[in-house]
Amino acid sequence: MEILKVEKLTNERWLNLYACHFQHQAHHGRWVYASRKEPDQPHQRADAVVIVPILHVPAQPPRLVLQKEFRVPIRGFNYGLPAGLLEEGESIEDTVRRELHEETGLELVRIKKISPVLYSSTGMTDESAYLVFVDVALPPQPRAQALEGSEIIEVILLDHAEVCRLCEHPDLPIDAKAWTVLYLYQQLGHLS
Amino acid sequence: MEILKVEKLTNERWLNLYACHFQHQAHHGRWVYASRKEPDQPHQRADAVVIVPILHVPAQPPRLVLQKEFRVPIRGFNYGLPAGLLEEGESIEDTVRRELHEETGLELVRIKKISPVLYSSTGMTDESAYLVFVDVALPPQPRAQALEGSEIIEVILLDHAEVCRLCEHPDLPIDAKAWTVLYLYQQLGHLS
Repeated sequence: MEILKVEKLTNERWLNLYACHFQHQAHHGRWVYASRKEPDQPHQRADAVVIVPILHVPAQPPRLVLQKEFRVPIRGFNYGLPAGLLEEGESIEDTVRRELHEETGLELVRIKKISPVLYSSTGMTDESAYLVFVDVALPPQPRAQALEGSEIIEVILLDHAEVCRLCEHPDLPIDAKAWTVLYLYQQLGHLS
Repeated sequence: MEILKVEKLTNERWLNLYACHFQHQAHHGRWVYASRKEPDQPHQRADAVVIVPILHVPAQPPRLVLQKEFRVPIRGFNYGLPAGLLEEGESIEDTVRRELHEETGLELVRIKKISPVLYSSTGMTDESAYLVFVDVALPPQPRAQALEGSEIIEVILLDHAEVCRLCEHPDLPIDAKAWTVLYLYQQLGHLS
C-alpha cells in the first residue's frame, strides 16, 4: 500500500476532512477521513484521555463514575466516561486530574492502568485516546464542576448492581468505550 | 440546548463534514462533526457491526479472532475486530455472517450477545455500531477471504495467553473496542 498524496478538503479550526490517494497493486483509491491534526503532524501520542474512575468513599460500596452529556453530533444526551483532549506539554496524569476536576469535581487518588494509544474508528478518523483506569475520592471541600459554555454534563455514580442494570438497558444512547467498561465489570462480578 | 441549523460543508460520497449551530442559554455555538449520514436521516439503528468472534475447534483451546488491517486514515496497520457497515434491509445477523465470510473465511455458529447502539466518539461524529459477541467455526471446506481492492487484512487467532500478551504490548496500533475486549478477557482469566 503506497500513499500518494493527502488533500485537505476543508479549513475548520477543530476538525477537518482529508482525501488520501493511495495505490495498492493495480488499485488506485481515494479514502476520505476526518482528523483533528494536520497530515504531516507527528503522531507520537494520543489526542485525548478517556477516564474509568472508581469512586471510593469510606463505609460505602465502590462506584463507577459516568456522565450523561449533551453531544451536538448526535443532537441528544449520551452516557460516556469523563474525557478530554491532552493539551500541549501536558502529561497524561495532569490531563486526567484536570478533566476529573472540571467535569466531575472529583479528586484523582491513583492511576491503576494506562492503555496503549487506542484508535476510535480507523475507517473514518485517526482520532486516538488513552483509556486510563483510576481510583478517585471526594474532594476535601465540595467543589462545583467548571464547565464551558457548550457543556451540559450530569455526573452519575453507579454501584455494581446499577452498572449491571445499565449494561442490559436495550436502548440507552451510550459511548462504545463506556458500554464495554460496563460489560467488563458486569462479567467480572465486581468494581475494582 | 437548542439546535438552530445544520450546514453541510462538503459533498463527498462516503463521509462528510457538517457544522451544527446551537444555542445553550446565552451561549451561541457552532460544532463541526463528521458523518456518513444526511442530518435529516432517521437514526433507528447503528451504522455497522463490530464482531467479537471466539473460534471453537474440537480438541483445541478457544481462540479470539482479530485482524491486522491496513487503514488509510492512520497510514499503517491496525489491530482490530472484524467489522462492516450494515447494508440497507440487511439484519444484524446477516451482516455478521457476511462480514465473517468476507474478512475471515469463518462460519457463524451462534450469536451470544448484541450490545445496544454504541457511539464511537460523540465529540466528533455520530458514527455508531453494535458490538456482537459470537462463536465461530472453521468452514466445512477451506474458504479464502473475499476482499475488495482497498483491503489488506491478515486474520489472527489468539489463545488466552496470547490475548494477555497482546493486551500488555506497550505500543501496538490497536482499535479501542479491540483493546477493551482483550482487557476484558485478560481480567476474566478465560475466553468464553
